[in-house]
Amino acid sequence: MAVQALVDAFLAGRRASLARAMSIVEDGRPGCDELLALLHPRLGRARRIGITGPPGAGKSTLTTLLAAGYRAAGHTVGILAVDPTSPFTGGALLGDRVRMEPVALDPGVFIRSMATRGSLGGLAGTTRELCDVLDAFGMDRILIETVGVGQSELEVARTADQTVVVLVPESGDSIQTMKAGLMEIADLFVVNKADRSGADRVKHDLEVMLGMRSGHALGGDDPAHHGVDLTNLRQIANPAKAARKAAVSTDGDSWTPAVIQCVGTTGLGVVELSAALDRHFVYLERRGVLAARRRVRLRQRVVDVVEDRVRHRLWLDAATNGWLDGEMPKVESGEATPFAVADALLARSGPLLTGVTR
Amino acid sequence: MAVQALVDAFLAGRRASLARAMSIVEDGRPGCDELLALLHPRLGRARRIGITGPPGAGKSTLTTLLAAGYRAAGHTVGILAVDPTSPFTGGALLGDRVRMEPVALDPGVFIRSMATRGSLGGLAGTTRELCDVLDAFGMDRILIETVGVGQSELEVARTADQTVVVLVPESGDSIQTMKAGLMEIADLFVVNKADRSGADRVKHDLEVMLGMRSGHALGGDDPAHHGVDLTNLRQIANPAKAARKAAVSTDGDSWTPAVIQCVGTTGLGVVELSAALDRHFVYLERRGVLAARRRVRLRQRVVDVVEDRVRHRLWLDAATNGWLDGEMPKVESGEATPFAVADALLARSGPLLTGVTR
Repeated sequence: MAVQALVDAFLAGRRASLARAMSIVEDGRPGCDELLALLHPRLGRARRIGITGPPGAGKSTLTTLLAAGYRAAGHTVGILAVDPTSPFTGGALLGDRVRMEPVALDPGVFIRSMATRGSLGGLAGTTRELCDVLDAFGMDRILIETVGVGQSELEVARTADQTVVVLVPESGDSIQTMKAGLMEIADLFVVNKADRSGADRVKHDLEVMLGMRSGHALGGDDPAHHGVDLTNLRQIANPAKAARKAAVSTDGDSWTPAVIQCVGTTGLGVVELSAALDRHFVYLERRGVLAARRRVRLRQRVVDVVEDRVRHRLWLDAATNGWLDGEMPKVESGEATPFAVADALLARSGPLLTGVTR
Repeated sequence: MAVQALVDAFLAGRRASLARAMSIVEDGRPGCDELLALLHPRLGRARRIGITGPPGAGKSTLTTLLAAGYRAAGHTVGILAVDPTSPFTGGALLGDRVRMEPVALDPGVFIRSMATRGSLGGLAGTTRELCDVLDAFGMDRILIETVGVGQSELEVARTADQTVVVLVPESGDSIQTMKAGLMEIADLFVVNKADRSGADRVKHDLEVMLGMRSGHALGGDDPAHHGVDLTNLRQIANPAKAARKAAVSTDGDSWTPAVIQCVGTTGLGVVELSAALDRHFVYLERRGVLAARRRVRLRQRVVDVVEDRVRHRLWLDAATNGWLDGEMPKVESGEATPFAVADALLARSGPLLTGVTR
């Protein structure tokens, strides 16, 4: 059968079959479920990293730099750029594709952009499944870049193992407003474009928010404000060692998100970011957090499949729709309520819902 | 019963019972469905007007001015401010509540703000139901203000009879990007803050997009660019008459969105906006579009209730969750796929789904 042939080519590592598999899943074409079912036993090897932040924060550049670093270390990389297009924000992210040129032609990198105006639930579900395809193909690292608008970044963050929130010095004023949302999704913070004024203030404010330092006013004597942070220097010299050391020194079961200053245009801070991601991943594995996050994600996956099944069976069925069309005039006239009609519809659609053929 | 007592007070026009009913529906508290079912026969009187646009476009000010105008004409007004809070945009809309002070103390106006980080589907559903409550209470006009971020404005636009998209002169550069999204939701455009430079250009670009004029460069001789538009002057002098006249002159079944320049801080253009809304409403009624939109909305309501019912019955059931918990290790190990488990879950949950008690 066609899907099995595709999977054979896919498992043989053919790039064209990866592209085809991604398209089938992205568009939900026939064979999509079968394909994902066949790939399911091969999941769990890739590390999934979400990168989110406001439009214009430099996410594409950071993503490209991270990808280049992973390639230099011998890892394969999948990049998924997810743009929940809004009439008022446009497809800003997709316009940035050109920034990924440095890695776009590398055969060890696969990039897919996805812009959608569909439902966000669908967006998050599709993102997760596209990551599954990249994971099953054998990509070591999957970078998921999302514009932070609406609730999309929340949904998409839930599809990643670890999430980096990218801010810029100009984000300073809104950190208090963003607090709850940021705390919910960020494993790591980047203050990008840190060569602009205000970068130290934003880092300081984030650290206060995270409880890493007391809220006193910025003092000129604080070495952290001049970049003289010995821990950070050590990490840059030997990221892997520093990562292990830092992970061991984590006390208790909690992780305090690091705040890292970067300058995407020069690459400053990217090695440190990569090291912090490694450190965080070690924490995730040691404390069982990774397994827990993946368990939640997989359970959500089953829940989504169940709800999709119900939706499809009900609303693609001509008899259901015909019956509902017949009832609607009563709802419109006020004679019947939406609730009574909904209950009646569910009562008569039993065989459809449970998958028993009539 | 408690809900019936609330409905009695509600139908007697008690404002406190309106506030209570709104809270019950907003939070989905027990009795919510029963309340909405009891109010259902009283729907359909209010005119529902959506007002959306990017953050900072001056939507709250325009909403307040429109509300004041409706009050002056003797109409009661419900205002629903819907803020799909994002970590990166914060609750910008809610910070604007102070701008509504001019109408907030008027007993003929009821204002409710709703900020949510929940699912957008839920947001749109709740918005529609809160409008139903305001409609059943007897509000003549319902103004639904939404920040345009993510896809929320699309969802919320579908809950309104007519939708105004508010832009500012600075929106000029992005009109081409926004084109598809704007065309999908806008019945009327406002270029607000039209005293700033670029307002004529935005109006012109929108009109080109709408096919109201050819795309030639802005000419200094075009009277429309100097505000010397006799049709507009007539409307301001006698909005109702102009509205009827314009509606009659609509040719065919289509409506071309008007583009109106406003200055929220001085009130300039608001009378014209109000007149254009009246004109558009006459068009909606005459051409059967209003009935069609409301029919679609009501059908979607039934669909949503069905899907909510399924969701609740499945995932609030301890037996279902217990069974799924037992299956998850097989999914995690790759032994079973999410699809197989989903099908098995649906097959065993038949009585729950169809509402037959076990």
